[in-house]
Amino acid sequence: MNGFRICGRNADRITSRGYGVRQGRCVILAWEEALYLAENEKFGLDFRDVFSKASQLDDFDVRFFVYRDLRARGYVVNIRGEYYDAKKSVHMPFYPMSDMDMFYFEKEIKKDLPHILSVVDGDGDVTYYLVDEANPEGNCQEKPVVEGFVVAGRRVFILNAKSLGTYGKTEGKFSYLSNMEARYLSGANVDYNGEIYSVYEDLRNRGLVVRSGFKYGTHFRTYTESMNEHSRFLVHVLSDSEEMQKISRAVRVAHAVRKELLLSKEIDGKIRYLHISWIRP
Amino acid sequence: MNGFRICGRNADRITSRGYGVRQGRCVILAWEEALYLAENEKFGLDFRDVFSKASQLDDFDVRFFVYRDLRARGYVVNIRGEYYDAKKSVHMPFYPMSDMDMFYFEKEIKKDLPHILSVVDGDGDVTYYLVDEANPEGNCQEKPVVEGFVVAGRRVFILNAKSLGTYGKTEGKFSYLSNMEARYLSGANVDYNGEIYSVYEDLRNRGLVVRSGFKYGTHFRTYTESMNEHSRFLVHVLSDSEEMQKISRAVRVAHAVRKELLLSKEIDGKIRYLHISWIRP
Repeated sequence: MNGFRICGRNADRITSRGYGVRQGRCVILAWEEALYLAENEKFGLDFRDVFSKASQLDDFDVRFFVYRDLRARGYVVNIRGEYYDAKKSVHMPFYPMSDMDMFYFEKEIKKDLPHILSVVDGDGDVTYYLVDEANPEGNCQEKPVVEGFVVAGRRVFILNAKSLGTYGKTEGKFSYLSNMEARYLSGANVDYNGEIYSVYEDLRNRGLVVRSGFKYGTHFRTYTESMNEHSRFLVHVLSDSEEMQKISRAVRVAHAVRKELLLSKEIDGKIRYLHISWIRP
Repeated sequence: MNGFRICGRNADRITSRGYGVRQGRCVILAWEEALYLAENEKFGLDFRDVFSKASQLDDFDVRFFVYRDLRARGYVVNIRGEYYDAKKSVHMPFYPMSDMDMFYFEKEIKKDLPHILSVVDGDGDVTYYLVDEANPEGNCQEKPVVEGFVVAGRRVFILNAKSLGTYGKTEGKFSYLSNMEARYLSGANVDYNGEIYSVYEDLRNRGLVVRSGFKYGTHFRTYTESMNEHSRFLVHVLSDSEEMQKISRAVRVAHAVRKELLLSKEIDGKIRYLHISWIRP
């Protein structure tokens, strides 16, 4: 389908409203544009005619729902292949996708940043996620010396109780560290997940205080300097591909507890972070 | 390790405080009990001695952290192999587990219900989840007749716009249904996930209104009668085993948006539901 050609007087009016690509005295409308105009009874386009052609495309529902939602929100939308370049106050790239699609970290970080994922769910509603790269940093440089520990379960215990600062916990007669804390502070040979540990190490090296994010269903929660503050980031370590539903769930938790969500992955030997948040464009 | 035997006058005092199993004029303490009493400097038990034995057990940290947390909350805790039978106002079974453990739906539904999962995270904190079976029911019996539709993408469109009640959506010149709605109402041959559809069908047959839960990162949100109410349940369809972290994330979302979470799975040809909620015991 090569679009819909409209020539003559209407071509000027269509172009000035921000639709189509000019070709001499004609304008070529993409099918989303033609269907949107037909639905709104503009310029004499026949809805059934345009629909019967457009609905044969695989991603018809996803692209059209995003396109018309952006138009309904007052955006001028330019079609750029995989994404929509949409403008209200500023230009932003909007990537239409289905709630059944996968989220590929590496693909996301290689797109223009920031960009907006525009996800169509089973109800036909569109949820928008703003994605940008992040470089989290903190001011915690302490690295207490840990000696004379006992490995037990997935933890390390130190019997002559002493404070370990922003690491582990000291209660009564003993202190303990998680497997990753023990590894980071002492190189202890404990059972841990290498990919998740790499992110732990990177966040600590960046000066952040890093603690368990389990209560929020993420790998980590972080503090800039100490645990007396409000934790700012939840950090989740991703696989190559993840269900978009999982990303949505993590974003929703972060939003509900007023924290920010960072997704993380090692790419070419470097730990990278994507900041993702729920927006109403 | 067969426990710690204490005989004589202390045996009476230990028994009356709710620890150990009586054997003649002696009492046998499980290692959790012995370590807890030693930590609190009761009955002359030596902390280092008990610790050095107990810490060799695989699940040492997980079991001990749950045991002492329940004791600190004022529970009398009886050790029953895999779980703790703990009593404050009523008896409840508490199952200690690690945040790295998997959640097995079938195993959970075959335990005594209700029960409480007691999950120890990397920080050593314990989070409690109350698990019980649920039989959700609603009052929506409508099943509109759907004819003359066009399959496009993962959806079904109907061009002569008409209201579909609690199904799909009608906007401007057309109505549409999700793939599962179309399957349910018309048997339409659309692309869908069989396991997830089975739960959709069961919920609809139970009289619930079932819509997308994507914004919450779950498969469905449900209403008892119509979409004018507040949605009560979020429903998530599980695989045989799931990361406990994923369950935690789903529970946290439901809690934050004041809905209830149902986990669902087909067991022996029947769709079963587990209600799971975050509690402070």
